[in-house]
Amino acid sequence: MSNTGEPVKEVTAAVILIGDEILSGRTQDLNLAYISTWLNVRGIQVHEARVIPDDEDVIAHTVNELRAKCNYVFTTGGIGPTHDDITADSIAKAFGVKIDYHPEVLRMLAEHYKEGEFTEARKRMARIPEGGTLVPNPISRAPGFQVENVFVMAGIPRIMQAQLEGVADRIVGGFTVISRTITVRMAEGNVAEKLTAVQERFADVSIGSYPSFHADGPAAALVMRARDEDMLDEAADAIRQMIRDLGAEPIEGEVS
Amino acid sequence: MSNTGEPVKEVTAAVILIGDEILSGRTQDLNLAYISTWLNVRGIQVHEARVIPDDEDVIAHTVNELRAKCNYVFTTGGIGPTHDDITADSIAKAFGVKIDYHPEVLRMLAEHYKEGEFTEARKRMARIPEGGTLVPNPISRAPGFQVENVFVMAGIPRIMQAQLEGVADRIVGGFTVISRTITVRMAEGNVAEKLTAVQERFADVSIGSYPSFHADGPAAALVMRARDEDMLDEAADAIRQMIRDLGAEPIEGEVS
Repeated sequence: MSNTGEPVKEVTAAVILIGDEILSGRTQDLNLAYISTWLNVRGIQVHEARVIPDDEDVIAHTVNELRAKCNYVFTTGGIGPTHDDITADSIAKAFGVKIDYHPEVLRMLAEHYKEGEFTEARKRMARIPEGGTLVPNPISRAPGFQVENVFVMAGIPRIMQAQLEGVADRIVGGFTVISRTITVRMAEGNVAEKLTAVQERFADVSIGSYPSFHADGPAAALVMRARDEDMLDEAADAIRQMIRDLGAEPIEGEVS
Repeated sequence: MSNTGEPVKEVTAAVILIGDEILSGRTQDLNLAYISTWLNVRGIQVHEARVIPDDEDVIAHTVNELRAKCNYVFTTGGIGPTHDDITADSIAKAFGVKIDYHPEVLRMLAEHYKEGEFTEARKRMARIPEGGTLVPNPISRAPGFQVENVFVMAGIPRIMQAQLEGVADRIVGGFTVISRTITVRMAEGNVAEKLTAVQERFADVSIGSYPSFHADGPAAALVMRARDEDMLDEAADAIRQMIRDLGAEPIEGEVS
């Protein structure tokens, strides 16, 4: 974190989920919500996410577009030992660098696998684009890697989650966006007009309304997000007052 | 479906998930997998999905980029009654058309809501871009809409799902991709080399390997996708033989 007295700035990230299995509907993605939450806590806002197929040109093009637009890019998927794992090659292509077996990874994997188990296929997982820094994988060893502002991680959630922890000290966040949620047990259409007025009073607080339906009737989670905690507290007070004016009781947090 | 004797072509779609709440990690998206599966059955392949914020320029730009690239675009989110619901305005902007209250929707909503409940905020849900065709909403009435090849739907899963059913007869699919899954109870690294050989034998079958870890050891789901069922059956036979050659028993489908 910089300590030079400059105003703390916004730091942004993009997430790229790589894999035919997500686009075909076979696999329910769980990584985006995890990464977004994890980054948010560290003062980084995810501005965009894309789900793309296992296609070298598409991966390279998407990475190049997003690494120019955001401070950080995080990819998941496609770094295993099988023929459909083409992310490392695609990243090398994106950066216009060579890709080769990384001596340290070869050593690490040779130690990890039993005699005869360190197959040619598994050796593929040691191929790292030139200039890449390793991203440790404490679960199954085969690492991800970082090239400039792009972090390449596994698709399997618990490996990806461990890899994120391993790069925590390589990322520098900007301002943190904090949030408060207050729920009202009414249809959001009955809250909307007064809510617009609250939003207009608090230009620096972003207020979202997320409806849900329950056995005992509708509810709306009103989520306030802002940089400034005092401002957020004021907005929350205004929301509570608004709900009471509507004849209901504000509920702190969400209802499930 | 065309019946002119032309070869059946590939028909593609893009999915745009609109909403700060998905990018912040607050909400776990469930719509992409549903839409992809639903389209797949109808002979439409989702080539790309994007998650973008509630930002008019970003929505308009993304819609314009993807409607030029794919046969169909499906959006979810941002068509409710609150101030943060800006998708309809953004779509109007994307197409360069006006947006106004749609008389039929006004009538429909006026009937639906009780006396005094059809507020100004709810009237916003009757604003439809010029030239838009309504997408019925049998759950809570306020419709989505279609402009050219872009279908605009709610973010709430059960409303979105009902809306998809309502447009089924407006979309024309191309070839259908069918799939088979055979699971092997081995680490995918031990299967990878022989699997590459099978993939090389069947160029028109796309084979993916999806590892998982269980109390009794690792497994890999081998998913074959192809247009031609006979070809798929042949590839499946080759996969079963490969698994037996590795000293294991092929398991039809997935293990959980």
